Amino acid sequence: MNFEQYFSPYTDKINRFLENFLQEKIKEAQRINPSLSLFWKNIRNFALGGKRVRGNLIRLGYECFKKADDKKLLPISAAIELNHSAILIHDDIIDQSKLRRNQSTIHEKYKEYHLKNYQKGIATHYGESMALDLGIIGYYEAIKLITHSLFTDSLKIKIINELSSSNIKAGYGEGLDIDLPYREKIKEKDIFDIYTYKTAYYTIVGPLNIGSILAGAKKKDLKIFRDYGLPLGIAFQIQDDILGIFGDERITGKEIGDDIRKGKNTILFTQVIKKADFKQKKRVRKLWGKENISLEEIKEVREIISQTGSLNYCQKLATNLGLKAKKAINKIESRELQEVFLSLADFIIKRKK
Amino acid sequence: MNFEQYFSPYTDKINRFLENFLQEKIKEAQRINPSLSLFWKNIRNFALGGKRVRGNLIRLGYECFKKADDKKLLPISAAIELNHSAILIHDDIIDQSKLRRNQSTIHEKYKEYHLKNYQKGIATHYGESMALDLGIIGYYEAIKLITHSLFTDSLKIKIINELSSSNIKAGYGEGLDIDLPYREKIKEKDIFDIYTYKTAYYTIVGPLNIGSILAGAKKKDLKIFRDYGLPLGIAFQIQDDILGIFGDERITGKEIGDDIRKGKNTILFTQVIKKADFKQKKRVRKLWGKENISLEEIKEVREIISQTGSLNYCQKLATNLGLKAKKAINKIESRELQEVFLSLADFIIKRKK
Repeated sequence: MNFEQYFSPYTDKINRFLENFLQEKIKEAQRINPSLSLFWKNIRNFALGGKRVRGNLIRLGYECFKKADDKKLLPISAAIELNHSAILIHDDIIDQSKLRRNQSTIHEKYKEYHLKNYQKGIATHYGESMALDLGIIGYYEAIKLITHSLFTDSLKIKIINELSSSNIKAGYGEGLDIDLPYREKIKEKDIFDIYTYKTAYYTIVGPLNIGSILAGAKKKDLKIFRDYGLPLGIAFQIQDDILGIFGDERITGKEIGDDIRKGKNTILFTQVIKKADFKQKKRVRKLWGKENISLEEIKEVREIISQTGSLNYCQKLATNLGLKAKKAINKIESRELQEVFLSLADFIIKRKK
Repeated sequence: MNFEQYFSPYTDKINRFLENFLQEKIKEAQRINPSLSLFWKNIRNFALGGKRVRGNLIRLGYECFKKADDKKLLPISAAIELNHSAILIHDDIIDQSKLRRNQSTIHEKYKEYHLKNYQKGIATHYGESMALDLGIIGYYEAIKLITHSLFTDSLKIKIINELSSSNIKAGYGEGLDIDLPYREKIKEKDIFDIYTYKTAYYTIVGPLNIGSILAGAKKKDLKIFRDYGLPLGIAFQIQDDILGIFGDERITGKEIGDDIRKGKNTILFTQVIKKADFKQKKRVRKLWGKENISLEEIKEVREIISQTGSLNYCQKLATNLGLKAKKAINKIESRELQEVFLSLADFIIKRKK
């Protein structure tokens, strides 16, 4: 069975669970004060578009040790997805992104709301403040989904601890991501740190850990998820970088050339700076992070990345990391689950969105 | 014994605990990547200035049911204080405050760092992004302090749930606080909602609940803390508003007239709008929220607030709410603790900073 067949029925269940949960929250906020009516509506539209990778990885980690009881697991998967929505809301403020999943980001939605309805004040700051606040509420509702679940208190504490560690790691990764572009020379090691903390732990290792802990796994059992998740998480991020510059806007749902405009820290960038000749390097340094970059200029940067072999280097790097991840899978007992892990690794490396 | 005598030795213990904890965190972040070295240093300078009301209220709530074991309670009090620092960091972004506890706010510190060290990029956005990120890490380290404490897992889950509810309520209050100034007519009920959610639960009821739950209190035992904490929390906020406009900058550590400049939602404002004559009302509406308001204009608004009796109204309201809070104290068994609760209520109503 490939991962899509394995994930699909549970993805539907997560979506139904979240839909009910968010409808409840919309009512709750409105009861407190009608001014809060937009609060969860915005998070609902935003949260329902995801691929549910993290929620499904919890179940996959669980099934490595025990047959899943979906009903019992669902609140935990929903929690991880809600937590993820909250992180994305904050990420989008930090990255100043306007588009996510083919629609306006939360702070943009609130900004639009302000511009439409209010005559005074600064719409941008209103939007960012509301999104900041909404994200925090999302984090704590995620924790409450765990505290109210049917697992033992001892297991709940273990996974709240794991989720907290994973969010802290993501926070460190984010901090590096914000700060490092300003440093004189950014090293490939720094980028790997960002990928490891911001993506690999948080997206893959963390959810697999949470699932397996709930199924009774011991600390030593978790090594396999690190061996699989860390290289794969980094590969995922490299593929994300490639899509961020070479991807099709209609498929990715992200603005074209966004990573160049934002001057994002990527291996593509450190590579092109390493491999480009003097003239090319000067152009890339000039255009990387240029706020009002033109489509022509984006194409020019793309050309240089391709010509210098930097694109090829990153594609190979992602493939090799994927292979490394796949090697870890041998230690999983079930043949059927091995296939799921393998096909997920292949997808992550080859994905178009 | 008054509350200051009761709090003082434990305040010292909280400060020592936090100092050690934060030193550990500074090292941890530096180990991950030297670029993160400022991360916890900033939070350390910021977190060590507090009055530790919340951390002490946890112990006070506990002692209503059981003699406190300080060593066991300290990580929980430290957690609530760290959580509070994180909330203040985010609050200061939302309020665009530059000063807190007589020093630059975190986003300001990071902005200053950016201006001093980096040549490109937008310093304001860098500062806000770093502060946003650091706040989130603070929230989760607070939760980890709880998960690693020596209480039973069952109690840990109960108080993580209580802390989450209390942060969610604060989030709703904050959302109202951001949104309501833009509405055509703001009602006194709206302001009370903000005070109840943003301050009363979060500052008083929540910490007392957490402490008493740890001491084995039942749900019905918590009513007393609501009866005490809700009116007192609102009184606290009204006093805060008065200090925000009439307080001495050297004592409060906040910018003079800040609440007027920011156009903050306060009972003082709804009152003055209600009581002022046509000409005064026009002036207040014009100056309330004026970005570049002069000292002269601040004095003018103060005058109108005093003349219309709005200051007097708010002072009386705070006093009456304080009396209401005090009535609830009769149900506390220990005479000694009753005194602590009473003197705290008096302080909150009469405080100068």
